[in-house]
Amino acid sequence: MVFGNLTRFAFPGKIHLVNRNGGTVYERSAATSCVAIGEPIDLALVMVPGSAIDEVFSDLSEAGIANAVVLTSGFAELGADGALAQAALAKRAQQLGIRLLGPNCLGFINFIDHVPLFTSQRRAQREVGAVAIVSQSGAVGTILADVAFHQNVSLSYLVSTGNEVDVNVADVIDYLADEPHTKVIGVFLETVRDGQRFQQAALKARSAGKPIIVLKVGSSEISAKAARAHTGSLVGDDRVFDAACRRLGMVRVASPEELIATTAVLARLGRINGGFALAAMSGGMCEIAADRAANVALRMPALSEETVTALRQVMPAYGTPHNPLDFTGAAMLKPESIEAMLKVLASDPAVGVVACIFDAPEVEDRTGFVAKVFQSIDRGFSGTGKPVLILSNVSATVAKAGRDMTQGLRAPYFGVGVDRGLLAIANACDWWAHHPGVGRSSPPIARNAESTPAQRPGGEREVLDYLSSHGVPVIPAMIATSALQAEEIARKLGGSLAFKILSAQIAHKSDVGGVALNVTAETAAAVYDAMLEKVASARPDAIIDGVIVSPMRRGGVELFVGTMRDPVWGAVVAVGLGGVWVEALKDTSLRLLPVAEEDVLEMLGELRGTMLLSGFRGAPAVDRRALAQSIVRIGDAALALGPDLISLEVNPLLATHHGVEALDGLVVWT
Amino acid sequence: MVFGNLTRFAFPGKIHLVNRNGGTVYERSAATSCVAIGEPIDLALVMVPGSAIDEVFSDLSEAGIANAVVLTSGFAELGADGALAQAALAKRAQQLGIRLLGPNCLGFINFIDHVPLFTSQRRAQREVGAVAIVSQSGAVGTILADVAFHQNVSLSYLVSTGNEVDVNVADVIDYLADEPHTKVIGVFLETVRDGQRFQQAALKARSAGKPIIVLKVGSSEISAKAARAHTGSLVGDDRVFDAACRRLGMVRVASPEELIATTAVLARLGRINGGFALAAMSGGMCEIAADRAANVALRMPALSEETVTALRQVMPAYGTPHNPLDFTGAAMLKPESIEAMLKVLASDPAVGVVACIFDAPEVEDRTGFVAKVFQSIDRGFSGTGKPVLILSNVSATVAKAGRDMTQGLRAPYFGVGVDRGLLAIANACDWWAHHPGVGRSSPPIARNAESTPAQRPGGEREVLDYLSSHGVPVIPAMIATSALQAEEIARKLGGSLAFKILSAQIAHKSDVGGVALNVTAETAAAVYDAMLEKVASARPDAIIDGVIVSPMRRGGVELFVGTMRDPVWGAVVAVGLGGVWVEALKDTSLRLLPVAEEDVLEMLGELRGTMLLSGFRGAPAVDRRALAQSIVRIGDAALALGPDLISLEVNPLLATHHGVEALDGLVVWT
Repeated sequence: MVFGNLTRFAFPGKIHLVNRNGGTVYERSAATSCVAIGEPIDLALVMVPGSAIDEVFSDLSEAGIANAVVLTSGFAELGADGALAQAALAKRAQQLGIRLLGPNCLGFINFIDHVPLFTSQRRAQREVGAVAIVSQSGAVGTILADVAFHQNVSLSYLVSTGNEVDVNVADVIDYLADEPHTKVIGVFLETVRDGQRFQQAALKARSAGKPIIVLKVGSSEISAKAARAHTGSLVGDDRVFDAACRRLGMVRVASPEELIATTAVLARLGRINGGFALAAMSGGMCEIAADRAANVALRMPALSEETVTALRQVMPAYGTPHNPLDFTGAAMLKPESIEAMLKVLASDPAVGVVACIFDAPEVEDRTGFVAKVFQSIDRGFSGTGKPVLILSNVSATVAKAGRDMTQGLRAPYFGVGVDRGLLAIANACDWWAHHPGVGRSSPPIARNAESTPAQRPGGEREVLDYLSSHGVPVIPAMIATSALQAEEIARKLGGSLAFKILSAQIAHKSDVGGVALNVTAETAAAVYDAMLEKVASARPDAIIDGVIVSPMRRGGVELFVGTMRDPVWGAVVAVGLGGVWVEALKDTSLRLLPVAEEDVLEMLGELRGTMLLSGFRGAPAVDRRALAQSIVRIGDAALALGPDLISLEVNPLLATHHGVEALDGLVVWT
Repeated sequence: MVFGNLTRFAFPGKIHLVNRNGGTVYERSAATSCVAIGEPIDLALVMVPGSAIDEVFSDLSEAGIANAVVLTSGFAELGADGALAQAALAKRAQQLGIRLLGPNCLGFINFIDHVPLFTSQRRAQREVGAVAIVSQSGAVGTILADVAFHQNVSLSYLVSTGNEVDVNVADVIDYLADEPHTKVIGVFLETVRDGQRFQQAALKARSAGKPIIVLKVGSSEISAKAARAHTGSLVGDDRVFDAACRRLGMVRVASPEELIATTAVLARLGRINGGFALAAMSGGMCEIAADRAANVALRMPALSEETVTALRQVMPAYGTPHNPLDFTGAAMLKPESIEAMLKVLASDPAVGVVACIFDAPEVEDRTGFVAKVFQSIDRGFSGTGKPVLILSNVSATVAKAGRDMTQGLRAPYFGVGVDRGLLAIANACDWWAHHPGVGRSSPPIARNAESTPAQRPGGEREVLDYLSSHGVPVIPAMIATSALQAEEIARKLGGSLAFKILSAQIAHKSDVGGVALNVTAETAAAVYDAMLEKVASARPDAIIDGVIVSPMRRGGVELFVGTMRDPVWGAVVAVGLGGVWVEALKDTSLRLLPVAEEDVLEMLGELRGTMLLSGFRGAPAVDRRALAQSIVRIGDAALALGPDLISLEVNPLLATHHGVEALDGLVVWT
């Protein structure tokens, strides 16, 4: 298969075939070893059984070969024994100074220099594309390349990284960020092995203006320890990866088809700035498209009065000047009429990208109706100065006649149909909306503490005091160590009070009778005694340091704020509304730490219950900015606690119209 | 185009061309009128300008032609004037006894009898299919037929109904329910003109075991009157259509591609009973598929111990016996090994349908690797006795070589790729899960009252009394008409009370100061006086009949139950949790009325906050069965109020662990 690829792609370099037994292979005489070739070699493809790997690496080294692609499988993918063999291979390669792609990988294709070192039969391309594909799975890599073929998308690179003992996905992304032919990078991920390295590479691509489109599968188990903290049960690995995508400006997709369509739209259309307009030869298809656009949150702006007036001039009287625009039957009878309608539609100031729906032909037709329509569309799109495209009605392989007809048009042609086309355009708009330079600053630099401070907050009050030292407003509290003192404090504070047991050993106080509400000076002493008795009998092991006495708070909105340390991506923060929202609905928004104020404002806006923050049933709106500031500080406070911190939770964080107050805090350490 | 179709499809009947001026058309001499033909004619295709329609219909009548397809446009689609012309055409046709498809329609194709009376160039099929397409839009009809072509799905009928002055979508569905070649009906809808007729036809198809798959766009405005009731603002037309789909057992889809893929799976696979299993030659694709299955709620059961043991016997040692099943590299080296793995996988008792992922070739290959894989799959699927299919990795047009290779296999081949394939299978499973005979009874017959009773409940207390007479538990209440009486009642009832103003003119009592809570005997007189004063000044127009005094209820879960009358589908009922759930989240479940107890239990399960009914934070679970019974009765009570009722709302309906109680009721009349 590789040899066939080398021939089909017209590989311009020299090819040497090596077989221990020599002989003739593909009508060439095979060398018995790399050393025996007797010439400098750039790269070796190793496709021997695992048992022969050691011998082959010795040969590579002796022959002075510094780069290898290893197809051989039977390593970490087989379990513990394989992992040992893989570690040995990695060590060996490093000792010999050999860089290695694989093992258990199908290799790569460099379409620019005609190097198809890929162990699966592949088609040559007519031209070098702007889309690179990197896949941890070789089979999914070939599937993505097949989708690209059917969608008439040309590639610059196809790289399968396999078990990644040396070169990994992040290395390839790093390389592609500098590679001039590649404009967009499509990635298939099963696991990220080094989160830090991946972040660097992804941010480098982002800085280079190259979108990364990711199809990620699988989700590892949340460690049992992390699940001890509430946040752990709210935040699966999959959601953390979503948060990483947002931080790194990557677009996450759900299928190979969506991945290729999205990369193609981004590669061919350039910067999108504004809403989406669509025109079609069918009112029904316009309605299908409008529903789809709403479904994928692709904004279709209403047309300005000027546009509507101008459209009336060029449309038949029975047409409706509207976005999406139905050309009406006029386009069937007079294809030339499309030009003027498209031109006006594209000129609307609210419109940033325009799609015209029409199918490329399956059979040659240079003079008929189809050709006339394409010519009219092409003229209509001339001079718009905006990204434009032609999109098929239905998903179909682009046939040769279609490729010929649509090549050289101003607008690229996409044969993926309206359903996937609009999803891809929405993805592209999403990327541009979050790309630096379009109103958003770069993500803040991580300030994670390198080490955990010796002084570690433990119980609730220590956590709140620690947060207070980081600028988070916390509820005032006094500690009572006797019933008498409890009564004195209650009298001093006055009003309705909350009593909570003070013990570093007890995380969930209410479960053991360690919380009492609506306590007054009259009941304080009795409540104190009852609480100590109840807690002591429920948790005889716990050291009880007294009772925390705080004023009761009424009104406002309770929030949940929890941080967690993800093994790949580092610290994350989850924010949700308290009570039923977070406990029953798990309605939280998640980000990698650190977060900036504008990130948190965005998080608050994502919550299903966000309207509760804006005032509900006559309650005043909470101070969102003060709330966001406090959450930023909670995140920073968690980072400052270093790598031994698993989780820091504030639950509830009370938000009112005049400020914020942390009412309870919890930490979990490794 | 029509003439070309007639030729291409080998129409077996006689064709007469008619043109007012006679002459030669397509090398035939044209008759100057239908009368001039001088032979009996079955059907006329009318494609004249609107101005000539009258004359043509006279000619049809004189020639004794009883059936016409009218392409001519320029009717209701153009607005008021066109609607007048359309009404005149409808009347004329009726008077002349001519049945009519259209106007403004592209006609129909009967693939069984080779009658392609369709005004758009269409491909002939190699065989008659089991899928019929009915579309209100001619253009979307052709688009659906194009998708069917690319997906290698053959059709039985393609019908465009246009403006539907006579034959409408429901009529065509009714016909297809009896038509023996058609097993599945795909429908594109813009609007349903006669809900009652549509329901009859859809239920007839359902009884015949023929699934209806619907792509529906557009949504009309909710009438202002309906929006006066709370339910109106919760329930858009689109959600009512969803409820209608559920009642009628129709599957609603979002794209032309999904429609055709779903019809094809239903037409080719037959009854599905059990979970979904999948096997592929790539671990990565297995993971993509597993994610997709979860995303579309397609259940992939774990394999039994027996299956796992049996799989170990036929898999390489490094393989993992698991659903989805990765054949591993063994399948590449030894395609014959697929047979045994598939056979074991399909034999698992929890598995009801099996897909094997593999791509049909684009070029002929009768002896190579691809052919061997297909043969092995085919043997593996033999004798499973379960629905099985082969699904492509990626979405692509099925090429001739692929059609040839996959024809005659036990398992049908779908070229739509894993993403759309799994969605279609999920849709098919959904249909079978709701089809009568698979554990669900037929929907209850509507018992809507024909006329509205003379005695109409008006104010809150009348509504509650009316509900009580229908078996709905309601909160006890007494009416006070003076401050003194209020105090007496309060003393009699004791405890904490709720006071509400009694006035048929006031719907939203709390807005005008007409609600007071936590009233006691001590405060009763003062609260009464204050309330009457406040309400009288806020609504001097309202006739105040006193104050309703009820006990305060604590605990339990508050629900919202509201009925509404939809102009197309009749009465519907919305159920939600009270307070923030329904007011801010609009979290409701909707059904057409009447509902049965099991429907309501299903509705309660669909609510986002459903766990609140099961006991939350230590509260006892509510009695769901009692709750469902009460909601059934509220629905029946609304139906009994006949067509003048717009909405009946119970808000809140209080549910506790020992029962249900309606606390407030509201009606809105036309």
